[in-house]
Amino acid sequence: MSEKCVLVGQSGGPTAAINASLAGVIAAARSLGVRVTGMRYGIQGFLAGRTVNLDEAVPDSRSLALLKQTPASWLGSCRFKLPKAADDESVYQDLFRRFDEAGADCVLYIGGNDSMDTIAKLGDYGQAIGSKIRFIGIPKTIDNDLVGTDHTPGFGSAARLVATSTAELALDADVYDLKSVTFVEIMGRDAGWLAASSALANPDLVLLPEVPLVEDVLMERLAKLLAEKNTVMVGVSEGVRTPEGKLYCELAAPGAGVDEFGHLATLSGTGRYLASVTKERLGCKTRAVEFSTLQRCAGQVVSRTDLDEAYMIGGTSTRAALDGETVKMCALERVADDPYEVHTKLIDVLSVANQVRHVPMEWISEDGMGLTEEFLRYVRPLVGEMPEQLPPLP
Amino acid sequence: MSEKCVLVGQSGGPTAAINASLAGVIAAARSLGVRVTGMRYGIQGFLAGRTVNLDEAVPDSRSLALLKQTPASWLGSCRFKLPKAADDESVYQDLFRRFDEAGADCVLYIGGNDSMDTIAKLGDYGQAIGSKIRFIGIPKTIDNDLVGTDHTPGFGSAARLVATSTAELALDADVYDLKSVTFVEIMGRDAGWLAASSALANPDLVLLPEVPLVEDVLMERLAKLLAEKNTVMVGVSEGVRTPEGKLYCELAAPGAGVDEFGHLATLSGTGRYLASVTKERLGCKTRAVEFSTLQRCAGQVVSRTDLDEAYMIGGTSTRAALDGETVKMCALERVADDPYEVHTKLIDVLSVANQVRHVPMEWISEDGMGLTEEFLRYVRPLVGEMPEQLPPLP
Repeated sequence: MSEKCVLVGQSGGPTAAINASLAGVIAAARSLGVRVTGMRYGIQGFLAGRTVNLDEAVPDSRSLALLKQTPASWLGSCRFKLPKAADDESVYQDLFRRFDEAGADCVLYIGGNDSMDTIAKLGDYGQAIGSKIRFIGIPKTIDNDLVGTDHTPGFGSAARLVATSTAELALDADVYDLKSVTFVEIMGRDAGWLAASSALANPDLVLLPEVPLVEDVLMERLAKLLAEKNTVMVGVSEGVRTPEGKLYCELAAPGAGVDEFGHLATLSGTGRYLASVTKERLGCKTRAVEFSTLQRCAGQVVSRTDLDEAYMIGGTSTRAALDGETVKMCALERVADDPYEVHTKLIDVLSVANQVRHVPMEWISEDGMGLTEEFLRYVRPLVGEMPEQLPPLP
Repeated sequence: MSEKCVLVGQSGGPTAAINASLAGVIAAARSLGVRVTGMRYGIQGFLAGRTVNLDEAVPDSRSLALLKQTPASWLGSCRFKLPKAADDESVYQDLFRRFDEAGADCVLYIGGNDSMDTIAKLGDYGQAIGSKIRFIGIPKTIDNDLVGTDHTPGFGSAARLVATSTAELALDADVYDLKSVTFVEIMGRDAGWLAASSALANPDLVLLPEVPLVEDVLMERLAKLLAEKNTVMVGVSEGVRTPEGKLYCELAAPGAGVDEFGHLATLSGTGRYLASVTKERLGCKTRAVEFSTLQRCAGQVVSRTDLDEAYMIGGTSTRAALDGETVKMCALERVADDPYEVHTKLIDVLSVANQVRHVPMEWISEDGMGLTEEFLRYVRPLVGEMPEQLPPLP
């Protein structure tokens, strides 16, 4: 072992693939003979001195393989927003002192756009004080809302859970000979990527945060659909808003709290709200199903491609950092849809931090309640083959 | 093909394995050269003349294999309670006329205890009018609440979804360094078998309908657990009641409707109710997760044993009916836990109809909030091996 050390942390919400990236970091560092230390509970735990020797905690290929397939954040995570250094330098001084104590040559942070903001700020501060430590962001988020990358590790597995479960729920909803509308509520605060993925299950409507939803228009569409068929399936993002910009879930649960990033703490209830309005106005049976946190931790329903890419990106980021790259994020660039091919590339982390990538309007159908074939071509390879079922009886 | 005909229907709530039993019926009849006709939407659809030729609709081994792995009720289902023949004979006259028109030698009905009641009544009436038609019940219910059988097809797969997802949610709940209580709400109106299966995920508490729940006692237990650890997991049945016999979900949503069997139509809300009480009284973060209908249709997270047994029982029941057995249900008798071994046997359907089998008190821990090792030995082979994960960091 050299004296070199990679320091790695996980941040933000868990995913089914975030530990695959951690496993990739450990595997790459190990193959280069470099030590790996983990932050417990991200930057926040690290500030409290909580680290773990990953060469001891993940000692062999067997534990590495298990780590790769273990969902959620194995190191622990945090939601911690670094202040601007100009506002509060002390936390930076603490961090860099601890980086030095840990002997860190580079810091890898696996997370979403808030984490890329952390990497950008640390890189900035490091440069200002003449530190040699490199900072690389490793993307992960089920929301797929990072700019500069074709998609984010974690998304494919969450999208697979959403798409395959929506297809299964459609079979379940169709067993009785009666009219019903099922609302499947899907995570995604501002960007509708995950809700859009339900389109792989061929639902009747998909409602995205990108398109303001007029309740009357929805009711008209549902009434028309119910005139034609028994079972209507709607994939709905938890982030769907009224034309006035109000979240439907706020109508469901007025007065919900706000977290330290200024995000609404609990977004659930959109499906329940729409189900109750539909029942009242159209008089049919309705059901609201929430996948809830299963979307970010369903280790059994993963996309193999997602897990492999997350692992790969962990490795690419580690090698890049040890090669001297800094203030970068490892992104994915798509070469082809089918057969699917993707490359890694390093991009400026500043171009990613605090931005949100939405589902492009040209991938949303004209009525705003469905996805185009282009979107399906985009998402199919990320999700993998849908489970095959005997087609329904006519 | 002989002139013999098996008539088969599906009834009650779907499961991930009910189509495996249907596939078993078709395969057994086919191997004996007997025609198979399906009822669409159970007895109710059949009364409206809706049938399907299953030799045409499932023509080959490929479609049979797909049917076996397709979740939910492929033929369609109903919730239809036959009146007593003494009260209304006309529906029986209609049914037996249609049985004769279909050329049915035997009627197989795949369902839960309400369906066994249907088989018992039809058998009774048939005997009274001197009909030669045989009636056999094929058990299925995720609730595992049928008497006379070690367990019911459909339960193992639902239990697998519950157990493995609860384990995944526990990983998700544990990622932040803070105190939290997660309530995982699990189906099961009167019997707690499915909720009990969450014990395979090693949660802190399991709350069953078999044991009245005192809110204060629960709060005391949770407070003690939170003093010792960060993350508390509770598996809770939707059917949990107060000592006065009131459902907790009624406290959550007063005035919910009642279905035609006199069951409360919607039982969900127990987890949400307990989460909100816990947050208010203990001041920690809480979360309520419902698996909802995924428990009966998650085709990706199935128990292989369950699917195979459902298929086998479909075959056993078909051969028994064609051999002249009637007013019976095909049950499972366990020979050994490990290595697991089970036999089929025919039991009197009258001994099953309208009864509920509860989790025996000797399998519930003394404090009423957990399961014994005996229960775990019972449930393990039905669920199969739990997915392996890297053990959490200390």
